[in-house]
Amino acid sequence: MIYADYNGSAPLDSQVKNYLLKRLEDGPFANPNAIHNLGTKTLMGMEKARSICAKILGAKKHQIFFNSGSTEGIATVFHSILSEAKKNHKTSFIISGFEHAAIPNTASYYQKEGFEIKTLPTTKSGIVDLEVLKKWLEEGRDQLAMVSIMAANNESGIIQPYKEIGRLCNSYGIPFFCDTTQYIGKAHFNFEESEMDYAILSGHKIGALTGAGILLAKEPSLLKPLIIGGGQETGLRGGTQNYIGNETLAVALTSVEEKLAHSKEIELARNAFEKDIKDSFPEVVIIGESSPRLGTTTYLSYPGIHGQAIQIELESDNIFVTTSSACSDNSPVTSHVLKAMGISDEVGRGVVRISLGMDSPLGYYKEIGEKLKKAYRKLSKVKSF
Amino acid sequence: MIYADYNGSAPLDSQVKNYLLKRLEDGPFANPNAIHNLGTKTLMGMEKARSICAKILGAKKHQIFFNSGSTEGIATVFHSILSEAKKNHKTSFIISGFEHAAIPNTASYYQKEGFEIKTLPTTKSGIVDLEVLKKWLEEGRDQLAMVSIMAANNESGIIQPYKEIGRLCNSYGIPFFCDTTQYIGKAHFNFEESEMDYAILSGHKIGALTGAGILLAKEPSLLKPLIIGGGQETGLRGGTQNYIGNETLAVALTSVEEKLAHSKEIELARNAFEKDIKDSFPEVVIIGESSPRLGTTTYLSYPGIHGQAIQIELESDNIFVTTSSACSDNSPVTSHVLKAMGISDEVGRGVVRISLGMDSPLGYYKEIGEKLKKAYRKLSKVKSF
Repeated sequence: MIYADYNGSAPLDSQVKNYLLKRLEDGPFANPNAIHNLGTKTLMGMEKARSICAKILGAKKHQIFFNSGSTEGIATVFHSILSEAKKNHKTSFIISGFEHAAIPNTASYYQKEGFEIKTLPTTKSGIVDLEVLKKWLEEGRDQLAMVSIMAANNESGIIQPYKEIGRLCNSYGIPFFCDTTQYIGKAHFNFEESEMDYAILSGHKIGALTGAGILLAKEPSLLKPLIIGGGQETGLRGGTQNYIGNETLAVALTSVEEKLAHSKEIELARNAFEKDIKDSFPEVVIIGESSPRLGTTTYLSYPGIHGQAIQIELESDNIFVTTSSACSDNSPVTSHVLKAMGISDEVGRGVVRISLGMDSPLGYYKEIGEKLKKAYRKLSKVKSF
Repeated sequence: MIYADYNGSAPLDSQVKNYLLKRLEDGPFANPNAIHNLGTKTLMGMEKARSICAKILGAKKHQIFFNSGSTEGIATVFHSILSEAKKNHKTSFIISGFEHAAIPNTASYYQKEGFEIKTLPTTKSGIVDLEVLKKWLEEGRDQLAMVSIMAANNESGIIQPYKEIGRLCNSYGIPFFCDTTQYIGKAHFNFEESEMDYAILSGHKIGALTGAGILLAKEPSLLKPLIIGGGQETGLRGGTQNYIGNETLAVALTSVEEKLAHSKEIELARNAFEKDIKDSFPEVVIIGESSPRLGTTTYLSYPGIHGQAIQIELESDNIFVTTSSACSDNSPVTSHVLKAMGISDEVGRGVVRISLGMDSPLGYYKEIGEKLKKAYRKLSKVKSF
């Protein structure tokens, strides 16, 4: 079996698995807020995990907030910034057109609350138009509450110039929230040097336990709790801490750091695979081919062959891919990410996303390539659009 | 070692541990929203877990919403009800004075948003004053947005007449939210028969994984998502589902059901332990002694001996208890729960909470009793207040 849907969710990292097998046997299990020694031990284990996460992410320990994952992180950042902005009559915010569905959906909620969503245009290469961003920041500095642009796209893997975006936002004093869910774990990341005010990650995307995540905040004092509760996470995220999940974040990030040392190799294998496909089928379009991209993502289309037909062919060969993102691939239309890039429906309906892990065997690309070519040969005879 | 802080957090249930050891080895790991077969398998596993949870909790499957735990449940219910109430000019809500800190803290947030908190008086026996509730419902029916009263108290274990409260609320058309976090898992519970509109549970209180929980809603259409995201949980709780955590909720609830068959035995052992202590030290006060209480909780005080001193003595004998709840036991004053009951500081400063699991060996009570008497004998010679 070849699992090629890491951008959807990564399987449990083997170091995390081994950690958990021992952890579940040995304990301790206690409320980290309890005064007895078992509580203290549990708390100390979790705080050690926080230190490890901070170090690997290039952040200070007090900038790390454990939560249930990126979607909660998004909700918390929007709530923190926009509830305060409302009081200061800052009534609009900027997003890109290719954000993960969680961002426009959350944005729509605040639109109903009276905010204006300003959606940045995207260039053909899948990057936000920085000139327009600059113009909007200049013109709207008094009304703008924040800028929310992702680091790496979940479908295409295209990487935004987030440092440049961050510097621009900073120069106008506008908070920059960057959805780093797909980026962290697949490329080197350092929060301190990122020019971001807020960043997020989800455990299940990096091989940690599902249901655990991190919100990074440059200035924690600007955060407001979405889940109030009993004062945990310095009052900014209530609820008895998910200490087991949080510990696995530290183990997974440690493992990620080791894997990233080999990131070039898998990227080269990915590039060879893409070249092979294009050599065999010149009509194939690779989304974001010439843009900075995550080294483990291929998002490609054979116009005229439905992406889902390819996905099913590959699945019959025990290769698991998706068409777009897990959150939108049940929809038969061109994804909003591709639409933002101005990509036609002919290409859009044909896309398949192949995303491996940093530690997937390099040989997987050869096997996927063979099976994909077989599928293209078969289905190109019965093109459906 | 005797772990006697189940009300703070339950250790991982042994059936959950065995389930996880196998689960982590075998998988599947995938995004439950992905279109491929691994995604479907993961989703089906989670939906099977939902069905099991629904059956055990006496609810319909569509009334079960997986989340990160009770504190998120509280935040979601307050957000759902109060954001709608505001539009309808319903500007107050009723809580009790002995709710878990998460409730008054969340209530305070809404107070700043313009809501009035009406805190019900508590009778000496630790039960809300139903006559006052009836009066307030009658007088305030047009302004009241909801009633939020817990089922069982986390410190004392005292059980509220929640069905009666629910019937009263229903008769006035006021939503009844019941914090069932301490109740579920320690007493028989049936949502359908509970007269509650909303109920909650946290995985870590019932031996499931930390960071997983359930919100039960009689009428899901009245819920609003706090975490919006990509449409998961029928649009009411965004974010890639914590499928591993959610599966452990089903395993833990199955285990709870088996343990509850023996609930009478542990309650009898608890009663014998309390009688023994009172026979030896008639000055000892057992909080809620004559009220309906969870069968595994003892909340007792020897006036004049600091609770924390007893906690430390017991810990030196490898018995882990707390003074009040994990969320407030770092505070050296009488807890708000005891204050609501009108209990003096002399008693309040002496309290120790001993809470076992439904499947703790009955002999634990004998050992705790001996060690507690030893501690009382020692410390009563040097009473400090």
